[in-house]
Order: sequence, then C-alpha cells, then structure tokens
Amino acid sequence: MANADQKKFMAQIDANKDSIIQRLAKAVAIPSVSGDAAYRKHVFEMADWLLAELKGLGATAELKPLGKQVLDGKELELPPVILGELGNDPAKKTILVYGHFDVQPALKSDGWDTEPFELVIDEKTGRMCGRGSSDDKGPILGWLNVVEAHTQLGLEMPVNLKFCLEGMEESGSVGLDELIEAEKDKFFTGVDAVCISDNYWLGTTKPCITHGLRGIAYYKLQISGPARDLHSGVFGGVVHEPMTDLFAIMSKLVTPTGEILIPGIKDLVAPLTDEEKQRYDVMDFTLDDINGATGSNSTVSEDKAKVLMGRMRYPSLSLHGIEGAFSEPGTKTVIPAKVIGKFSLRLVPDMTPEKVNELVTKFINDEFAKLGSKNTLTLTAEHGGKPWLADPNHWNYEAAIKATETIYGVKPDLTREGGSIPVTLTFADTLNKNVLLLPMGRSDDGAHSINEKLDVSNYIEGTKLLGVYLHEVAATK
Amino acid sequence: MANADQKKFMAQIDANKDSIIQRLAKAVAIPSVSGDAAYRKHVFEMADWLLAELKGLGATAELKPLGKQVLDGKELELPPVILGELGNDPAKKTILVYGHFDVQPALKSDGWDTEPFELVIDEKTGRMCGRGSSDDKGPILGWLNVVEAHTQLGLEMPVNLKFCLEGMEESGSVGLDELIEAEKDKFFTGVDAVCISDNYWLGTTKPCITHGLRGIAYYKLQISGPARDLHSGVFGGVVHEPMTDLFAIMSKLVTPTGEILIPGIKDLVAPLTDEEKQRYDVMDFTLDDINGATGSNSTVSEDKAKVLMGRMRYPSLSLHGIEGAFSEPGTKTVIPAKVIGKFSLRLVPDMTPEKVNELVTKFINDEFAKLGSKNTLTLTAEHGGKPWLADPNHWNYEAAIKATETIYGVKPDLTREGGSIPVTLTFADTLNKNVLLLPMGRSDDGAHSINEKLDVSNYIEGTKLLGVYLHEVAATK
Repeated sequence: MANADQKKFMAQIDANKDSIIQRLAKAVAIPSVSGDAAYRKHVFEMADWLLAELKGLGATAELKPLGKQVLDGKELELPPVILGELGNDPAKKTILVYGHFDVQPALKSDGWDTEPFELVIDEKTGRMCGRGSSDDKGPILGWLNVVEAHTQLGLEMPVNLKFCLEGMEESGSVGLDELIEAEKDKFFTGVDAVCISDNYWLGTTKPCITHGLRGIAYYKLQISGPARDLHSGVFGGVVHEPMTDLFAIMSKLVTPTGEILIPGIKDLVAPLTDEEKQRYDVMDFTLDDINGATGSNSTVSEDKAKVLMGRMRYPSLSLHGIEGAFSEPGTKTVIPAKVIGKFSLRLVPDMTPEKVNELVTKFINDEFAKLGSKNTLTLTAEHGGKPWLADPNHWNYEAAIKATETIYGVKPDLTREGGSIPVTLTFADTLNKNVLLLPMGRSDDGAHSINEKLDVSNYIEGTKLLGVYLHEVAATK
Repeated sequence: MANADQKKFMAQIDANKDSIIQRLAKAVAIPSVSGDAAYRKHVFEMADWLLAELKGLGATAELKPLGKQVLDGKELELPPVILGELGNDPAKKTILVYGHFDVQPALKSDGWDTEPFELVIDEKTGRMCGRGSSDDKGPILGWLNVVEAHTQLGLEMPVNLKFCLEGMEESGSVGLDELIEAEKDKFFTGVDAVCISDNYWLGTTKPCITHGLRGIAYYKLQISGPARDLHSGVFGGVVHEPMTDLFAIMSKLVTPTGEILIPGIKDLVAPLTDEEKQRYDVMDFTLDDINGATGSNSTVSEDKAKVLMGRMRYPSLSLHGIEGAFSEPGTKTVIPAKVIGKFSLRLVPDMTPEKVNELVTKFINDEFAKLGSKNTLTLTAEHGGKPWLADPNHWNYEAAIKATETIYGVKPDLTREGGSIPVTLTFADTLNKNVLLLPMGRSDDGAHSINEKLDVSNYIEGTKLLGVYLHEVAATK
C-alpha cells in the first residue's frame, strides 16, 4: 500500500533506531515534573532542549510565556508553550500537532524497578522503562524523528506542520486554553486539521484511533435542616434527617446496573447505528482487560460490546460521596445537619451540560417535593464539559486509518474514550477543525504509575505511523 | 400533703440557702475535668473534697481506685469512685444514689460570659452560672444538703443511703461497670432501689421523672468491588459501583418521615396503652422547645405527642455517614472501591439488639440479592445496648411522684429519654432493682455548653425534693 517515498521513509526510521532511542533517552533524563515546585526548572530545561531540537531540524519555533502561578505557596513562572512551524507551502495541507513535555512525579522509592529518569531498555522484552517514555515524550519525539528522516533522505515533507507543545498538561494545562484562544487568528491560522499525540491503544496488541470523548456534568446536592449536628438518641425519630432525604433522592438517579433513571436523559443520546455497533464487536478488547484494570470481576455485563459501549458511547452516572456526613472510621451517633451529595454524569452526543442540567434539576426538585420534607434542598451544577465526537469519515481519519493499515497491517479500532482530554475540545471548538487522537503507546504503559514504559516496537512503528499518516494526509482530497 | 418532719426539713433548707449555695460554689471552683490529662489532678481533688464532706456529715465513705488508663498518649490514674454509706438500720429501706463529680471541659475563651470555674449568681434571674453547676455537682450536693439539714434538726434520716459517685462520667465511665459487678454482693448488698441524679426536666417549667431510655444497635454496611478507586470517566457505566449499591440499600431502611421499613421491626415494639398515650398529651413540652434545640423547624410531625413518642417510645433509624467515599469539599470524579455505610437504630421495648440484628441482617441480605450486583456486601453489628424501661407504678416512683407534688404542686411528667445513660442499665441489670431518674435542673441548663447554669430555685426546691422523696420512700409499703 505504501508508495516509494513512504517505503524509503520507513526504512530510514529503522536505520535510525539507535539514534532515535538515544533522543528519547535524553528527553527522559530531564525530570520535567510540572506538579512539583522543586522540579519546575527542569520543565524549562525540557522546553529549551525541545526548542533546540526543533530548530535543529529546520523548524521556526518560540517559547510562549504563560505568566505565573502559585504552587505549594510559592509564586512560580509557568512553563512556556512551544509554538513551532515547519513549512508554509500554501499548496500543502497544514497539520497541527499537540503533545506535552512535562511528566508525572516519580521517585525510585515509589516502587520503580529502575531509576525513573533514566531510560532503561530490557532487550528481552523490548520495553523501555522511564518516566515520560510513553506519556508523552515518546510520542512528541516521534514527530521530530519523522522530520529528521525526511531531511536525511532529502525528501520533501508532504504537509506543513505546526507544533503546540505544552509543559503543564499533568498539572491542569494552566493557561493553555487562553493561549489557544489568543493565537486563534495568529499562529493557528491555516491549520487544516489537528493530530493529538497523547493517548493509548485500547489494549496491548491492536492499534486504535480515538474519535470521541465523553463530557461531564458534576453536581452538588445539598440538603440542610437543623442548625447544627444533632444527637441521634435525642433527635432520632423527631426531625426530618437530611441524610435520609439525600439517600432517598440519590438512590433514584441510577440503578445498580448503571441505568440512568432521570427522565429525558436517554432521549438525548444519539442512536446507535449498525455501523457503529460493529466497531465495538471487533475491537481488540476482552473483559479480562477491564477486570485486570479494576482488579475485580464487576463489569455490568458479560457482553464485551455492551461494556465497551458503556464506557464509550453511553452516558453514565456515578455517586462520588457526601460532604458533611460522618466519614471517619469508627462509630458516631450523629444526625448530620447539612450534607452535600456529589455525583456526576458522563455525557455523550447529543447531551450538553445545559440540557442535562435542566433535566437533573427538574427531576431532583420533583423527587424532593414528593418526600414532603421540611429540609431545604439546593442543587448546584459544578463544572460541565461537552462531549466531543469527530467525524471518522473525515480525510484526517482516512489518512490515519490508511497509515495504520500500512504500518500494522490491520484496520485500527475506532474508539471513543470515557474520560475527557480538555485540549481536544478546545482545539475542536476554537479552531473549528477536525481533531484526531493518534496513539503511540499501549494500554499497559502505566502512564501515571510506577515503571512507565514504551515498547521499542511502539516507538519505532509509531514513528513510522506518524510519517506515513502525513503522507496519506497529503494524498487525500 | 407534707407531714410535720417534711415541713421542718423544707424550712431548714430555706434557712440554709446561703450556706448550701456556698457549698456549690466551692465544688464548682474545683475544675474537675475528666477528659483532659492536665486537669486530672483536680478530679482527684474533687473526690477528696467530696469524701471529706460526706464524712463530715457522718457517712462512712471510701475512695475505690479503678486503675490506669491512657489519655493523650500518657498513662494516667483513673479517678476513684466514692462508695459511701449513711445508716444501716435493717428496719429502713436502702436507697442507692448515683451521681458524678467530674465535668466537661470549659474555657472562658470558648465564649463564656463569666469564669467557668467560678459560681457567678445573677440575683435578677436567679441563675447560678458555672461548669458543673447543673451537671452534676448541684444534684449530688443536693443529697449532702439533705443529710446536713436532718442533722441540724436532730431529725432521723428516713432511709439508709448508699452513695456511688464517679469521676469519669464525662469520659465514658471507664471502669465503673466492672466495679459495680465486683461490688454487687458486697457494697451494693441490701439496696432496695436506685435514684440517679444526672438528668434534666424535659422543658423549663415543669418537673419530670424519667423511667425509660432507648437502646441502640449500630451497623457498618460495607460494599466492595474494584480493588482500587476508579476514574469515573474510564469506568463509569462499566462496573457495578459500590456507592450505587450502598445508596440503593440504605435508602430502603427508613422513609424521610422516619418510618422504619425493615420488616418485623415494628412488631417488636410494645403497644401503646391509653394510659401511656395520655402522658405524652400532658407533658410540659411544645414544638418550640424542639425547634429551639435544633435551630430549625423540621419536626416530623406538628403533633406534640407524636413528636414526643418519636423520641421516647418508638424506635428510630438514622443514617450517619459513609467511610471510604469522597467526603472533602470540592469535586472529585472517583468511583470509590470500598464504602462503609454507617447507620443505627434506637431501640425501645421489646426490641433487643439480638432480635434487631436478625431482622436487619435478613433484610439487607435480601435487598442486596435483589440488586444482582457483582460487588460484595459485609454487614457488621457494632455496639448494641438494650433499651431500659422501669415500672413507674413501683414504690420508688410513687415516692418520687408524691414528693414532686409536695414541692412543685404538680404531677410530674413521666418521661422517657431518646438516648442512653449506660449506668442506668448497669444498675438495673446488675442489682436487679428498680431505678429512677430524678432530675434537679432544667432542659436549658446547657450541661455540655458554654454558660452552664443551675437556677437557684431548682437547687433549693430540688434539694427539698430529694429529702421529701426519701421520706415518701420510707412511707411506702
């Protein structure tokens, strides 16, 4: 399927194997932990190193300062965002690449088998262990490896590239949304589609491409009555207890098998098409994968497709906890005076936080009225985020699918994820362009855990995938 | 109604007014806080003072050591129990008097208007402010005042008295049950009835006599599934969530108006007799009293008798909280892996913790089975205590009722309390004698709060009440 240029490129990546692993080793050696003030200087060091690499490959690039933040009581400079550009041929498409160069904290004493900030390669298993190997230094260096190979081959890049690489992803992406909004009609002008390099295969053997993320609507349900906590001996049976009301209402939101009982919610969910259903049937995924991740056997169904749809394409409702009730170990005979139940819904198209707020508010007020309680209910909608779903028939996806077939010889799973990656929605909404999540690593890479790793094969083939994807982008109409 | 001896006695108490208030002032000045290691020496000081007072009045008395405890990380000697005896005429009845000489902590900076360990008398209102004035130094000194007046008058005491005065009541009565059991056939031999001096009127204007206390059965309901907390984005809709199961079950225990839904519980409750019902109708009590105490208007009924029965003679079920769920302020999108719901029932005759355990266990297991959840449920019965109910037609009560009519000119309310006073049950069960709770103070004395007070009238008339009660005990068959 690959044309001559693609073949030359892939061979060059194989030839560069040692040097591009060395590039990753250098990146992992910089402990660019964004969440710890003591490590902040290394995030800057990482930005400088990456900027030099980009410039060395012929890109124009600059560090965009984001101002200050307060962390651990100290005022700190935020790490800059790297905005880079390679090529501006109006005849070519322009792909915006997103990734991040900061990492999660890691200490050997956390339980790592090796030094976290040293890339240690196990020749037998092909695993490259080190913090950031998979999340997200390997994937961003993949793009640099692509450019380098083209230069070495004297091969023209098939598309124009723009880079947006941040250093605060592991710490809330502070300042990023504002920068994207501010640069919308400046740096980001001319972007045709976006490729986000910051996720993983669904399993460990088959590549996937992610085209959807669930949104969220988070609620605080406060019920208050007495002016102070009461003794259950003296007041049990005497007053309307806020906890009883809270349990009565929160128990009516969702069934133990996860069915949301709020009227109207199901009607908002876009219907399942046969084509989509088939995707779940063939996905590289078993119940064992889920059970391994939860350390239990507690899936709501034994049907793989149902479980996958429960995570990817249907809404869910989780009860998180109660503020103001007795939460310590031991026993206490208290009637809590004011309790705040926390719950949230994960949203899918065509749900929006606004529509969901309306239904949740009406249902909860109706149910509370039925109780005939003298307590007071206050429902607050906390953060809300729309679901995101990209059209997988767009040329951006066509290119990624073709490239995956070329590299891995298999049609990738078209997956959606249950959680959210906020920058995805920011790019989709702000730039109004198709966004694609193209993963390099596997589900078992342990992104936020000890012994984070990236397999050599995922790094090498994943780098090839990025390059061939760009060629396929150029080839689409 | 009072005979000549009673009249002389009452007049003597009036004559002694200043000196007996001075006695209370001396007692309040000793900061006998049992719950603070730094104050422990003052509990011993208080025991010594009281022992000397008793001996000064002709009683034989001794300090019974209870051994050691660990408090605030320090090994401390427990305050002794005072066991005292006055008279041992086999022709007379023997009344055992219980009270405590330790107090709750108090600092001026807590918000007191006056120095807590100084008895400050407001001549206008007749309030005597000071920690321990009402809980429980005033009541125990009442007994000493009675003996003193009889001695001054050359009047024979109508009954034999035994005293059991402890110094750890505010800190769990550590060691007391064991002492009572050990002395059952020694010091406590010959006791005909018990009078507990450690509670309050139901309201502020009418005296009452307490003849019942509710028991308790406390439960921990654990539901576990996943091996670790999960992210609701990734696993919401995928697994059986322990919180959903917990809410489903705990919401089925009790209605928002307090009706217990566990089958069989209601059948255990002794039926309401007309005679008993009438007592609630006439009790000196308004809904405003309850609303004042809760700082709200949230009683389960507007019917006074119903509210009183809810507290005194019917069981209740309160949901206290959840251990293991998200309980902090803010928002967290967690699916808790293991949650422990805490709830308890207050028990009334003929409920016992054993019978209740059986019903609760069956109901919860049945309800959990209905959920079809893959999670695991574990129900643990924590502390249980029987309800206590004394026969108010016993001569002990007849005497107290007559005495109250003599002193206050009104038939006292026959009340039951919603909480528990464990020593009551210990005396009733260990000695197998009728136990009576005869209060001195009012409901608004603020026993555990700032500005604790005892009204001069309650101290003086309450002292008279104790003396006349002893005379009436002697007069009963």
